[in-house]
Amino acid sequence: MGSVKYAIGVDFGSDSVRALVVNVHTGEELASDVGYYKRWAEGLYCDATANQFRQHPQDYLDALQECVSGVLKKVSPEVAENVVGIGVDTTGSTPGPVDKNGTPLALLEEFKENPNAMFNLWKDHTAVREAAEINELAKTWGGVDFTKYSGGVYSSEWFWSKMLHVHRVDEGVRQTAYTWVEICDWTPAVLTGTEDPKLMKRSRCAAGHKAMWHEEWNGLPSEEFLVQLDPMLAGMRERYNPATYTSDEIAGYLTPEWGQKLGLPPGIPVAVGALDAHMGAIGGGIGEKAMVKIMGTSTCDVMIASKDVIGQNLVAGICGQVDGSVVPGMIGLEAGQSAFGDVYAWFRDLLMWPLNVLGEEVGLSEEQKAQIRERILAKLSQEASELDPRESTVMALDWLNGRRTPFADQTLKGALLGLTLGTDAPRIFRALVEATAFGAKAIAERFREEGLVIEEVIAEGGIPSKNPFVMQVTADVFNMPIKVVKSDQAVALGAAMFAAVASGIYSNIEEAQAAMGCGFSRIFKPDPEKAKIYESMYEQYLRVGGSLEEELRTL
Amino acid sequence: MGSVKYAIGVDFGSDSVRALVVNVHTGEELASDVGYYKRWAEGLYCDATANQFRQHPQDYLDALQECVSGVLKKVSPEVAENVVGIGVDTTGSTPGPVDKNGTPLALLEEFKENPNAMFNLWKDHTAVREAAEINELAKTWGGVDFTKYSGGVYSSEWFWSKMLHVHRVDEGVRQTAYTWVEICDWTPAVLTGTEDPKLMKRSRCAAGHKAMWHEEWNGLPSEEFLVQLDPMLAGMRERYNPATYTSDEIAGYLTPEWGQKLGLPPGIPVAVGALDAHMGAIGGGIGEKAMVKIMGTSTCDVMIASKDVIGQNLVAGICGQVDGSVVPGMIGLEAGQSAFGDVYAWFRDLLMWPLNVLGEEVGLSEEQKAQIRERILAKLSQEASELDPRESTVMALDWLNGRRTPFADQTLKGALLGLTLGTDAPRIFRALVEATAFGAKAIAERFREEGLVIEEVIAEGGIPSKNPFVMQVTADVFNMPIKVVKSDQAVALGAAMFAAVASGIYSNIEEAQAAMGCGFSRIFKPDPEKAKIYESMYEQYLRVGGSLEEELRTL
Repeated sequence: MGSVKYAIGVDFGSDSVRALVVNVHTGEELASDVGYYKRWAEGLYCDATANQFRQHPQDYLDALQECVSGVLKKVSPEVAENVVGIGVDTTGSTPGPVDKNGTPLALLEEFKENPNAMFNLWKDHTAVREAAEINELAKTWGGVDFTKYSGGVYSSEWFWSKMLHVHRVDEGVRQTAYTWVEICDWTPAVLTGTEDPKLMKRSRCAAGHKAMWHEEWNGLPSEEFLVQLDPMLAGMRERYNPATYTSDEIAGYLTPEWGQKLGLPPGIPVAVGALDAHMGAIGGGIGEKAMVKIMGTSTCDVMIASKDVIGQNLVAGICGQVDGSVVPGMIGLEAGQSAFGDVYAWFRDLLMWPLNVLGEEVGLSEEQKAQIRERILAKLSQEASELDPRESTVMALDWLNGRRTPFADQTLKGALLGLTLGTDAPRIFRALVEATAFGAKAIAERFREEGLVIEEVIAEGGIPSKNPFVMQVTADVFNMPIKVVKSDQAVALGAAMFAAVASGIYSNIEEAQAAMGCGFSRIFKPDPEKAKIYESMYEQYLRVGGSLEEELRTL
Repeated sequence: MGSVKYAIGVDFGSDSVRALVVNVHTGEELASDVGYYKRWAEGLYCDATANQFRQHPQDYLDALQECVSGVLKKVSPEVAENVVGIGVDTTGSTPGPVDKNGTPLALLEEFKENPNAMFNLWKDHTAVREAAEINELAKTWGGVDFTKYSGGVYSSEWFWSKMLHVHRVDEGVRQTAYTWVEICDWTPAVLTGTEDPKLMKRSRCAAGHKAMWHEEWNGLPSEEFLVQLDPMLAGMRERYNPATYTSDEIAGYLTPEWGQKLGLPPGIPVAVGALDAHMGAIGGGIGEKAMVKIMGTSTCDVMIASKDVIGQNLVAGICGQVDGSVVPGMIGLEAGQSAFGDVYAWFRDLLMWPLNVLGEEVGLSEEQKAQIRERILAKLSQEASELDPRESTVMALDWLNGRRTPFADQTLKGALLGLTLGTDAPRIFRALVEATAFGAKAIAERFREEGLVIEEVIAEGGIPSKNPFVMQVTADVFNMPIKVVKSDQAVALGAAMFAAVASGIYSNIEEAQAAMGCGFSRIFKPDPEKAKIYESMYEQYLRVGGSLEEELRTL
């Protein structure tokens, strides 16, 4: 027992952080625990109507301590003593301003209640104008197009848009901010006591996918470009450590202070952080010619390609291609759908309207309402699964939260067509599920059009384990088997794999994947007859979507 | 009191027949009563999945006796004694086969349970193929286009389609049927004891709008055309009294037998029948340059034009223009929407889905469900009325039951566009209401494009009195005041007005209208600001609808 070693994967999500203890030799998952962001749960610092979503750094610190110390209470003391490393993944782009000591401004007394001094969660859309300016300048300034490795479109959800927006609206923050950091950079720095922002090891994954970092231009976009964008960005570039790092590298070593807080041996390595989808791809078993789909409220679709395969190809319309963002030494490619499970949740909530507004009047209890709400999607899925796709006249466009890829356009919207007086809820639900599957296929086709081969589709996240109907339709639309990752903690497992590499148990991530991989719990095989039907329905989805884009934008 | 005279208007609807007793001098409505179709209420002889809707003639006779004798029990015996005439309107085209004695085949022992021997209700769509053949032949046979006064498109809902379809599928009926008659022809014949089908006074309104009767070709389409359509139609033309009649004329006199059954003086005149919408237009106060909209589950939109105004104009895309179908001596024009209130009912039923399929499981009573169902549309209307049309991104196409006018196309379907994760039920409802109003405006514009002037919009039927929100949106979209007819029995009132003319109280229908008209209960005035907004939204409705027509047809 003394010789068995363990790694901890720490996965910072949108609402909570999760810690997973893994046997580094077998990949066995011993225990996990969750810490919730308390201020966030109270709705503090956010304004949904303005798409402002901010998170307090103290939330991260509190929840981190809670879940790591919590998970160690679930295992024996020997396990804690034999933890050899920590890996960290986080949401992103979720950057925030820090001072010269690497302290997020919201941890300073002066800024502790100021949302602009906090981390800007990935889905914060307050910087739409700044993103538009970046895109405009990138195409027109005469120099290199710095968006070219980011799918050709820079997003309002990303690093520079957010920094520029906050600096424009908050003079105090601008004056005090030395630089901005992603949480995947900041949390390893905290655990390892790295205070000087210039010594903070920046994640290659976040830098490449969210901050236009690329070795072609020696790191971040040029000073000239940034100053032309806004003079207030002058000097920002040089405060950002240009040597970005992949997650097989060590960010530093656990400080005694945090060792005590967490209940772990001080001095163990902490791996360089990365974004959750990319570590999830590792945990799900990504390899060349595989697409890993992390399917939840939205999706992230990740592929990797060796440099000689992808060559000079620029995959337009995706969220970026970055050397080492997934597997060190290979190009990591990210794409995704802005809404997936959220589309189904939208329809559920629409159908709940009468109960929500009239239930009380007719004496319905909160519990009865909650029971119906809880059962709607399962019932819709069951009834929709019994429909022949040819017998329903309904088709949908899935852009209810805009379109992330292919070809990002947040101004697009969803649609339902072919409604008749006989159209019922299961028929609409089936059309919505088909539309999200068509949206997923459009991403795969975008990769294929650029020469990438997809021989394997791997799925993880909330949807694959919860909704077999959605998965079957997606497999039928893809006309490919879809393998569901066995672990429901595949993202944290990926972080633990990187911890195992950073601590020297394995010499590279592929070895860690081979030893610690969790395999698949289920394979959804396509129905050849349905696949054939969906082929022509997909063509119709593309044709109708294309013809309506302009109208949907202006609605 | 002895000198006060009364008329009875009898209105055959889809589910029931209604009788109204009216003071012919003042238009005062003394009482009304309803008789339901009992076999129909049990769902007999119908097959909704095949769009087969048949009504047994005995249902009409039983319900007629019930409601007329019923209404007379509500008034004093002197009133019954002073009834001077009966007017009849019915649904249509609702034809059925009769033998040489004018007896509907289903009243013969041999055919009493045979749906093909019954009346084919207006919404029966079993004759889609036959309608297509008629349209094809009309455009290609080289002779006159007999559909030209019917908007250029003959419908599966109409006389010849239905007769031909039934004769093709039922040899027994074909052998025994001498001719086919509309219920608006048959019920006055019954009341007046007219047995010989050739003596039965055919309604100009039904003949012109539903059977391609026109004086340009001396009545029905030529024998040559009909035989070319199908040799089994040979001889049918000459069994149809070519002298059609307007409803100011007397069909005959009440027989002693029916006088006794109904409790009315025998020998009083019974006016020639007509279709309900046309008599409804009379009851609602139609005049030149007025459009009367009968707004319920679907709509009928009626106009009249003097012959010198309309001249040789053919109004394409409507349901026909017939000399005397509304006001004798003037051209009556009919158009309409296949679904109006039905669109709102569809959305209500969609939202009821969770309650219907899961309510019982969580202990909801039938009464609670019924209460919610009953309140949904009012609550949706209230919340939707508080929305600014500009703030919602949703737009709809209202063709959930196909499109009747302009330009009939039953293969079109509805749509919802501009959906976002923030789209809730009131926003969708508002879009549906706007779409039905845009559909209504498209009909008005079709008339205008042919040179007709609309200076006044009059509304009657179920919607105007029940849903002020829908009426306000319609007024805003029309950018015209909409006057709501005071009587909720305007159709039966129109029939009573014709009874008053047929019995000689008035020399023409205009005089009857002037004396017996009920006026308006409310006027919805357009909001100039909203009217302006809707002007551009209407353009978008036309543009999006036009671009989607082809896809919607094939879905």
